[in-house]
Amino acid sequence: MELIKGGVTSAKGFKAACTAAGIKYKGRTDMALVVSDVPATCAGTFTSNVVKAACVKWDMDIVNSGRKMSAVVVNSGIANACTGREGYEACEKTAKAAAEALNVDKDGVAVASTGVIGMQLPVDKLENGVKAMAPLLSESIEAGTDASKAIMTTDTVNKETAVSFTIGDKKVTLGGMSKGSGMIHPNMCTMLGFLCTDANVSKNVLQEILSDVVKDTFNMITVDGDTSTNDTLLIMANGLAENEEIIGKGEAYDKLYEAVYSVCEYLAKRMAGDGEGATKLFEAAVVNAKSKNDAKLMARSVVGSNLSKAAIYGNDANFGRFLCAMGYSGAQFDEADVELYFKSANGTLKVFDHGVPLSFDEDEATKILSADAVTVYIDMNEGDAKATAWGCDLTYDYVKINADYRS
Amino acid sequence: MELIKGGVTSAKGFKAACTAAGIKYKGRTDMALVVSDVPATCAGTFTSNVVKAACVKWDMDIVNSGRKMSAVVVNSGIANACTGREGYEACEKTAKAAAEALNVDKDGVAVASTGVIGMQLPVDKLENGVKAMAPLLSESIEAGTDASKAIMTTDTVNKETAVSFTIGDKKVTLGGMSKGSGMIHPNMCTMLGFLCTDANVSKNVLQEILSDVVKDTFNMITVDGDTSTNDTLLIMANGLAENEEIIGKGEAYDKLYEAVYSVCEYLAKRMAGDGEGATKLFEAAVVNAKSKNDAKLMARSVVGSNLSKAAIYGNDANFGRFLCAMGYSGAQFDEADVELYFKSANGTLKVFDHGVPLSFDEDEATKILSADAVTVYIDMNEGDAKATAWGCDLTYDYVKINADYRS
Repeated sequence: MELIKGGVTSAKGFKAACTAAGIKYKGRTDMALVVSDVPATCAGTFTSNVVKAACVKWDMDIVNSGRKMSAVVVNSGIANACTGREGYEACEKTAKAAAEALNVDKDGVAVASTGVIGMQLPVDKLENGVKAMAPLLSESIEAGTDASKAIMTTDTVNKETAVSFTIGDKKVTLGGMSKGSGMIHPNMCTMLGFLCTDANVSKNVLQEILSDVVKDTFNMITVDGDTSTNDTLLIMANGLAENEEIIGKGEAYDKLYEAVYSVCEYLAKRMAGDGEGATKLFEAAVVNAKSKNDAKLMARSVVGSNLSKAAIYGNDANFGRFLCAMGYSGAQFDEADVELYFKSANGTLKVFDHGVPLSFDEDEATKILSADAVTVYIDMNEGDAKATAWGCDLTYDYVKINADYRS
Repeated sequence: MELIKGGVTSAKGFKAACTAAGIKYKGRTDMALVVSDVPATCAGTFTSNVVKAACVKWDMDIVNSGRKMSAVVVNSGIANACTGREGYEACEKTAKAAAEALNVDKDGVAVASTGVIGMQLPVDKLENGVKAMAPLLSESIEAGTDASKAIMTTDTVNKETAVSFTIGDKKVTLGGMSKGSGMIHPNMCTMLGFLCTDANVSKNVLQEILSDVVKDTFNMITVDGDTSTNDTLLIMANGLAENEEIIGKGEAYDKLYEAVYSVCEYLAKRMAGDGEGATKLFEAAVVNAKSKNDAKLMARSVVGSNLSKAAIYGNDANFGRFLCAMGYSGAQFDEADVELYFKSANGTLKVFDHGVPLSFDEDEATKILSADAVTVYIDMNEGDAKATAWGCDLTYDYVKINADYRS
């Protein structure tokens, strides 16, 4: 597998465009369109929040029905959640506008929104946006990059990546983009993520791979513990790589799995490190736990704790907060078994050993914690299960961004 | 029942003292001692965190053994959690010093600590502190107030209250104090709380009342979602009011229940409103829910959401965040049933009606949200269960306090 430059337009037969539709922001793009030249097999994972945005309901219907997907229309600024029947009709009208502009089936056009909850979409602006984007569709890398920028809200950097690999004598490519900076605590999948591949793969295999990969990637990041109403991850596979169709486990399955995992892990870590107001990526690695579930509970609890996050922001080696977060995670363990380390590009430091706090050099701790990416490494010494979770620090800017988000 | 001035020394036969033992802070008191003239029936609730502080283990042993309690020694600055065998020995040595100074049984002396996790207590300073406090014990209201100040960490105000009522011809008094500002998300009880009453009551009834009251008071507040390693709520009942012993349900039971509820609710709300860095009390009242459990899940989720808390800080009527938090709380509901209001001393405003966002006057919303105490009132229209939870806003100062707590 090879990492390549690009994103949603990297795989064969995918095009993208974006526009400034003026939905809520001024002076920036706020709509993106991703289209497959031929209707694509699709799979998706969606928010577990009881309150689901209208667009989530629309997309779930496409994925669950078994229909093929031809295009995705995305807008930033307004989430189209808690908007009643009017909100669902906005999805249908947007999809219809895209279907007409692209000459495809309306019921194969996915829609996705991100932004303020409880506000109606200006449907006419979305319809005009779709019409404006259709003639601009391009398979260039730049078109994919521009699309990944148009879907940003409080993100400070766009997130996209792509990989290529071979199945038999066929070159297969997978690219993706995602966004998400606040209200990030995925519990089925993440805020918004779109993956495009030219692999030839059955719908069942595509869904199986996506659902499995999500558990260890997007579902292991948290910015603020708030599981959004809009979390949507879609993958389209249009088959244009012309490999023999992947219909079950085997070498080709493993290669596609690895590619999906690689792209999702990259995007997930980028989202965590670009959490609202964040200054650094905060990773918790739990090893030698009794069970995979326990390891996940503890890793997520540590990176999700406000007190842990504030300590990481302050470069404060206040390791008791990590132990406290492990303790209320729901996992069972004996603190007398635990070893805890801080790790970063600047070094490694052990601070807690089998139930007893160690004395350590505060200057060295501060140096390690001052890196752009910091890992709390926790050896449970109780089994052989492990898990890694990613988050970010809690900063003044998080509060600033969220105390006045709507204005 | 009558609200009276006072705290832990208000009930007959209770004395308190405090001192500056120099455990971690300089220039302020950091130890408190509360003593009953006669050994008291006791009950307690403790943290559900798997990682329990040494003092929690020590106190659980007293409460569970059925022994009477004569005194409580409290220190602020260091939590004595994650401190191994040395930490437990510190509890024993502190209790022993108090037992000698007060001429009581060591196994009836409770200890409680709050502060940094993963740091050993300076036992000699605690022993000297206990010796210094014993001769200062006083039943004055001021002594109780001073004790409530000595146990503060990042609290900005002390928390104490007292009530009196009659059982037959006997006057009964109940007073209490608590502390807690960060790492507040009780899940059995709260950070540190101490209640003293002269009621004559059986141990079983005392524990039953305390455990039940805690569910709707201390367990319904959250500052940051972090369930502490040290949560401890103790009640001592020394019987000096000489009422007929309360051994089961009835009028006397109800009166004591009401008194305990009143004191716990007051202390809990004070703790929530004085959350680290908070500028206001943030209340979520859920009514007409399908079940009590659903109502509690939703109320706690709303006041616990970082995004909700930041919006409340910014006086931003971003009601979608509250609906989002309800949606990931674990409760099941249909958003089309929900009505949502903002309420405060400055007015009431409906913002969401049966699944549809309402247009409203932003200036009026800002005025309502600018009050010292703000309520999000949520009518589920699905049943008759209700619950209220209390929290606070998320501010720059929360981050500031916690980014550099240890230094």
